[in-house]
Amino acid sequence: MSTAILGKDLVGLEPLSGDQIRAILDTAEPFKEVSERQIKKVPALRGKTIVNLFYEASTRTRISFEFAEKRLSADTVNVQAAGSSISKGETLVDTARNLEAMRIDMVVIRHGASGAAQFLGARIQSNVINAGDGKHEHPTQGLLDLLTLRDHFTNLAGLKVCIVGDVLHSRVARSNIWGLTKLGAQVAVCGPATLLPRDIAELGVTVFRHVAEAIQWADALNVLRLQLERMTAGFIPSLREYNRVFGVTNERLARAPKDILIMHPGPMNRGVEIDSDVADGPHSVILPQVTNGVAVRMAVLYLLAGGSPDWAAGGGDTA
Amino acid sequence: MSTAILGKDLVGLEPLSGDQIRAILDTAEPFKEVSERQIKKVPALRGKTIVNLFYEASTRTRISFEFAEKRLSADTVNVQAAGSSISKGETLVDTARNLEAMRIDMVVIRHGASGAAQFLGARIQSNVINAGDGKHEHPTQGLLDLLTLRDHFTNLAGLKVCIVGDVLHSRVARSNIWGLTKLGAQVAVCGPATLLPRDIAELGVTVFRHVAEAIQWADALNVLRLQLERMTAGFIPSLREYNRVFGVTNERLARAPKDILIMHPGPMNRGVEIDSDVADGPHSVILPQVTNGVAVRMAVLYLLAGGSPDWAAGGGDTA
Amino acid sequence: MSTAILGKDLVGLEPLSGDQIRAILDTAEPFKEVSERQIKKVPALRGKTIVNLFYEASTRTRISFEFAEKRLSADTVNVQAAGSSISKGETLVDTARNLEAMRIDMVVIRHGASGAAQFLGARIQSNVINAGDGKHEHPTQGLLDLLTLRDHFTNLAGLKVCIVGDVLHSRVARSNIWGLTKLGAQVAVCGPATLLPRDIAELGVTVFRHVAEAIQWADALNVLRLQLERMTAGFIPSLREYNRVFGVTNERLARAPKDILIMHPGPMNRGVEIDSDVADGPHSVILPQVTNGVAVRMAVLYLLAGGSPDWAAGGGDTA
Repeated sequence: MSTAILGKDLVGLEPLSGDQIRAILDTAEPFKEVSERQIKKVPALRGKTIVNLFYEASTRTRISFEFAEKRLSADTVNVQAAGSSISKGETLVDTARNLEAMRIDMVVIRHGASGAAQFLGARIQSNVINAGDGKHEHPTQGLLDLLTLRDHFTNLAGLKVCIVGDVLHSRVARSNIWGLTKLGAQVAVCGPATLLPRDIAELGVTVFRHVAEAIQWADALNVLRLQLERMTAGFIPSLREYNRVFGVTNERLARAPKDILIMHPGPMNRGVEIDSDVADGPHSVILPQVTNGVAVRMAVLYLLAGGSPDWAAGGGDTA
Repeated sequence: MSTAILGKDLVGLEPLSGDQIRAILDTAEPFKEVSERQIKKVPALRGKTIVNLFYEASTRTRISFEFAEKRLSADTVNVQAAGSSISKGETLVDTARNLEAMRIDMVVIRHGASGAAQFLGARIQSNVINAGDGKHEHPTQGLLDLLTLRDHFTNLAGLKVCIVGDVLHSRVARSNIWGLTKLGAQVAVCGPATLLPRDIAELGVTVFRHVAEAIQWADALNVLRLQLERMTAGFIPSLREYNRVFGVTNERLARAPKDILIMHPGPMNRGVEIDSDVADGPHSVILPQVTNGVAVRMAVLYLLAGGSPDWAAGGGDTA
Repeated sequence: MSTAILGKDLVGLEPLSGDQIRAILDTAEPFKEVSERQIKKVPALRGKTIVNLFYEASTRTRISFEFAEKRLSADTVNVQAAGSSISKGETLVDTARNLEAMRIDMVVIRHGASGAAQFLGARIQSNVINAGDGKHEHPTQGLLDLLTLRDHFTNLAGLKVCIVGDVLHSRVARSNIWGLTKLGAQVAVCGPATLLPRDIAELGVTVFRHVAEAIQWADALNVLRLQLERMTAGFIPSLREYNRVFGVTNERLARAPKDILIMHPGPMNRGVEIDSDVADGPHSVILPQVTNGVAVRMAVLYLLAGGSPDWAAGGGDTA
């Protein structure tokens, strides 16, 4: 049943159709309500066993997945592979086969190597969910961004969304570009030439060289975190210079022809890529993004486990 | 309902009245029995989600809270913030807002900065429980100490309790002083002048300069752990010298005019602030303190979640 | 009831009789099926509280125990003692007493010191399960190896099993030797003289100096992981030399007089003690060992908690 919608794994948004993405977002809607209940729990994944296998540290994404899993009544085990005996890349196959042998139903994997989730999914029968792989994709982040946009604009077709910042190194940007494009949105990017992929204009993506131009064009900005090590690596001259050209400020937003929705995947460098006034201001949906993250992850887990999108019809039952 | 008893957060014992403290202790009584059952579980917090957010490592307190949470059937997530991306103090607000956005019901926080729990509680709607903040308070430790004293003396009014050791740096001492005072006990401290707050005598607290004097006076001693780094920092001349003047030994206790109850928050430096004969002897209630810790934490979690103190009437039901 | 079968703790296979070992294996059989269900959960240990106290890092064993515990519906807490405040050996007694005071039902302990599990078990009322102690024993690994052998040979009496590799430092080897001997199997070892116990031949164990000889003799090989630091410590001249004499290869297995079952406790050094062709080949039961690990651990937890071996009669009920 689930395979009709999603297949075995969620590796990225690139392999999905617009219909598949819409089905996930539709499934997420009723899960939003579960987290607003007094008893935040449904029995959908009771008796399922899930491993959160994080080769890169990530507190926020791990917590979000873990609560999504627990609110579905799954049994979860965390593996912080960084520093552990399984952190060596060459043993990923053996690790995967071991988990499968323990009859794990699902593996949520974050890994520094692009393609790690697909590699894993191809080798085990358990469902695999990509929680970020190198510079490749971070599909549940892309989905929560889409869900948040849909909350405000209803229809994404024709919507103008500009991704601001270090697009070159960002799996969040890649998942957003795939997801937005498949739902018919217009996508632009804005950032220093050193931090944009070389051929991006050829892919039909508009490029802005100054955030003021992006603000004239966009319905929504998705502002990426600037990894501070980009500065020491020579990609940008200084944080101050970056902020001068690409920082999203209330002053700049005030010159926009319309209200612009402000998103950020977190964690923020306040005063660098985004000012606090903006992050905490009326157009920011940064915290609703986090709330939607739990719902989207519940939807993905639920669908991969074989759930039907019309779950909510029968079941507000608590576990 | 809970707000009538406790308010939204438990930041310390200083802001509580004697009646509020007594209500927590009364609520803890029936929870003691839960941990003695074959099936150590009640459904009181089923479907609630709790984050244990520990910016300082603390195995014992974390385990105690985690079992208290699980015996109440809550869903729990641990965050060891030390060393993680959220360990930087400036992001505590963002971390807090993110947790709230995930619809966390409660946050148990331990942090190196005095005031961190209050800071957090003022910024999120989730309940916040202080599991130790800098040199400020460690209220559940204070409460378990009070519960243990009440097990033995029934009425704390007029009881003479002396806190022995590094009162200056101790949040345990501060929570004890507030709690004991509010319940009408007489409080003394005993330690080297370098490790006592300068103005403590002015606060109505008796000061002893030698543990032998304290033993002549007290009904109970609460012996603090000596952080061994105090020696290298020059607060005390040597461990041996400290033990000679402030170490609690059977020889000294034998000269007391009455039996003295011996408490210690753990972990102990056996042979420094307390001798093994005493720690494991007939007057020690160090292990009952640990047992009471789980019950007190269950009571606090339960009351903050909106539970009524008369829960036990309806419900020995297991989850 | 459980004490009739196992006593309070599982410290090793040495203290067990053949009948006790057989009873554990028999109890594990129906638990295998639980992990094959859609809902991998039975309520046997509901409301029991278990601490996984790991003084040495071990991802695989910890995950296996944790899923065994959760599939029995126990409440679990993990303590990674390495690096924590309780990692100092001298406080193991205090740690144990604290856990007992919190009314922990069971402690699963891994520790670098031989005898740590027994030491702990003698001091607390909670059940203690040895998950590996120094060079002493790793009894659940021994049991899962026995269960895997029994799956293929039905009767272990007279079966010829050779343990290949660093027997000297291996608690896996020790638990295997005890278990196999008690079930009537013939045991041999094969490895460089520097990595075999000096007096092992006197114990009635056959010794082979080249893996080719072992292959002529054995029904099954249990190939140990070579700790790579043995090379720098001078126990072996080089990995290549080790592989030349002791590496298990398809070429060598082809010269065996019969099919030989290949086991390995993991994680493997592919190309050192075992070739990938063998590890992934038709005679390998390395992954079934992992699957059996969960079942054996469920059986041990269940029996120590007072369960009866005939549990499956009444109860396929899910939690």
